[in-house]
Amino acid sequence: VFATESEFVRWLQKQSAGRAKGLRLGIGDDAALIEAGRGRELILTADLTIEGVHFLPGIHPPRAVGHRALARSLSDIAAMGGTPRYALISLAISPRTTRAWLKEFYAGVFALARRFAVMVVGGDTAVVSGATSVDAMVVGEIPSGKAILRSGARPGDQLFVSGRLGLSALGLRSLRGGKNGKAATRENRNAARKAHLYPEPRCELGRFLGKRNLATALIDLSDGFSTDLARLCAASRVGACVEAAKIPALFPATPGGLSRDEALGLALNGGEDYELLFTVSPGKVSLVPREFHGVPLHQVGQICRLKQNLLILPAGNKVTLHSAGYDHFRKLD
Amino acid sequence: VFATESEFVRWLQKQSAGRAKGLRLGIGDDAALIEAGRGRELILTADLTIEGVHFLPGIHPPRAVGHRALARSLSDIAAMGGTPRYALISLAISPRTTRAWLKEFYAGVFALARRFAVMVVGGDTAVVSGATSVDAMVVGEIPSGKAILRSGARPGDQLFVSGRLGLSALGLRSLRGGKNGKAATRENRNAARKAHLYPEPRCELGRFLGKRNLATALIDLSDGFSTDLARLCAASRVGACVEAAKIPALFPATPGGLSRDEALGLALNGGEDYELLFTVSPGKVSLVPREFHGVPLHQVGQICRLKQNLLILPAGNKVTLHSAGYDHFRKLD
Repeated sequence: VFATESEFVRWLQKQSAGRAKGLRLGIGDDAALIEAGRGRELILTADLTIEGVHFLPGIHPPRAVGHRALARSLSDIAAMGGTPRYALISLAISPRTTRAWLKEFYAGVFALARRFAVMVVGGDTAVVSGATSVDAMVVGEIPSGKAILRSGARPGDQLFVSGRLGLSALGLRSLRGGKNGKAATRENRNAARKAHLYPEPRCELGRFLGKRNLATALIDLSDGFSTDLARLCAASRVGACVEAAKIPALFPATPGGLSRDEALGLALNGGEDYELLFTVSPGKVSLVPREFHGVPLHQVGQICRLKQNLLILPAGNKVTLHSAGYDHFRKLD
Repeated sequence: VFATESEFVRWLQKQSAGRAKGLRLGIGDDAALIEAGRGRELILTADLTIEGVHFLPGIHPPRAVGHRALARSLSDIAAMGGTPRYALISLAISPRTTRAWLKEFYAGVFALARRFAVMVVGGDTAVVSGATSVDAMVVGEIPSGKAILRSGARPGDQLFVSGRLGLSALGLRSLRGGKNGKAATRENRNAARKAHLYPEPRCELGRFLGKRNLATALIDLSDGFSTDLARLCAASRVGACVEAAKIPALFPATPGGLSRDEALGLALNGGEDYELLFTVSPGKVSLVPREFHGVPLHQVGQICRLKQNLLILPAGNKVTLHSAGYDHFRKLD
């Protein structure tokens, strides 16, 4: 088909080109923006969550599947700086699905929705012969002109990331009982599993960055730092220099746990952390707090005029930072 | 799981109960309604289109799959009396999908979107191991308080339906080369195939009924007249008496074609006609035109205080009109 997701997205952008009345931003960012009157814009986003791709029966309890399906879309709203309001949940269920699974799935959806004051207003349901899949569509809102796009990063801007990276990927490993899954301390293992099963969309942080005009560009880390950074840089037509030593990677030197290199690998390519990656112009760097509501904010590099993204290793040598996160089209011929 | 779709929907309504600021209508109608300011409400709807359920490879060309996926949601907006504005298309594709299939699929989506001045603004894409599925989410709008719900039918109201019923089901038969597929005249066959592959959402008619305050209740015929009438009646807590002789069924007495009973069966239970079924209070019946932009409008029965829906056969005897259209949960244990 298409070689990569971004090639497909560019093709789709061309097809849907042309300005519609009220459309502020179409295909290609975290979400679309629509003029809504009264000084507001609507934010529209949809995200698929698919059995065998985004969750595995036996590994992901149905409550976590519901939580994660909605969290993906809430995170996209966070990545614009907006407030999520309404959700539609479409569910294609395999014939093996039990009533208990459905109830737990929706319990996960509704618990997260309630916490973010999001109203689930509809969707569709069908039975399929294959795997179960969910499409979560969320409508958010934001004051007009306040949305933070992927495309606003400029050379000299500093690069920040929220939280700790790689936790979700480690949690998945642990749940699958694979390498390092058992080695970490119980406390770390539980934190990682919780981060994987019940990720927390950073809506408050996104709104804070928007209200204070702190970020020039913003994206959420759904497919991995290296991949999502590449998307932000491509949209802004810039490059980035990232310092490996500054990346908030996992639990260094837990005995029997991750090596420093493994932790860095998970942080750069792990995916599903749903933390926010944002850029701040030099004059505003001092206004970025060290942490926001208990979530640390780390400066990890800066934006430059490069055509590629570089990783500065602790020894000082620079290597190209390739996108090694998840790309759906990589599976296809 | 749940015995029927409506049992599931009732359960879901209970879970999502509670009023949210700005929510006018939640789960259970054709679409949700949200207060949007400036005298407008937003209409939100999502519809799944699934390989093996809603389309079959080899039978449905990809362009028709794209058209039908979007048409389902546009028809839901028509069924509220609204105007569709924006669409999100989420696509979970099987690894067998070719670039040509994808391009044709989107050509179908974009051609229909353009004709209805709908902007495709986003969605999600993923590769799945199983069948391809599409979720089409559409945002529409309508002047505040003008939406026509399923729940407004009152005893004495007259029941109307647009177009000709059963055409889509006959078209599918013909495409599959099954019974009656070859018997119909070529002209009828082509009309039926076109109705099945490229159904026309009745947005203009829906808007007309809303603007003139003509309809007390409205639903689109997606799962079949008998099923969708039962939904309208359940929402309005009424029953209906339908006259078989007045149902606009197919091509009576084509030599070698459908018998009268077969045509009536397709009309009542065929599904996917995407015509509009609506009720009109006695005082306004004379204001309903015989046809609207070339689409005939037929009075087919009336609303009454029954607990069930009755079909009056040509001989005068009455039988219960059971919901024999599509119910997704009927397949489950």
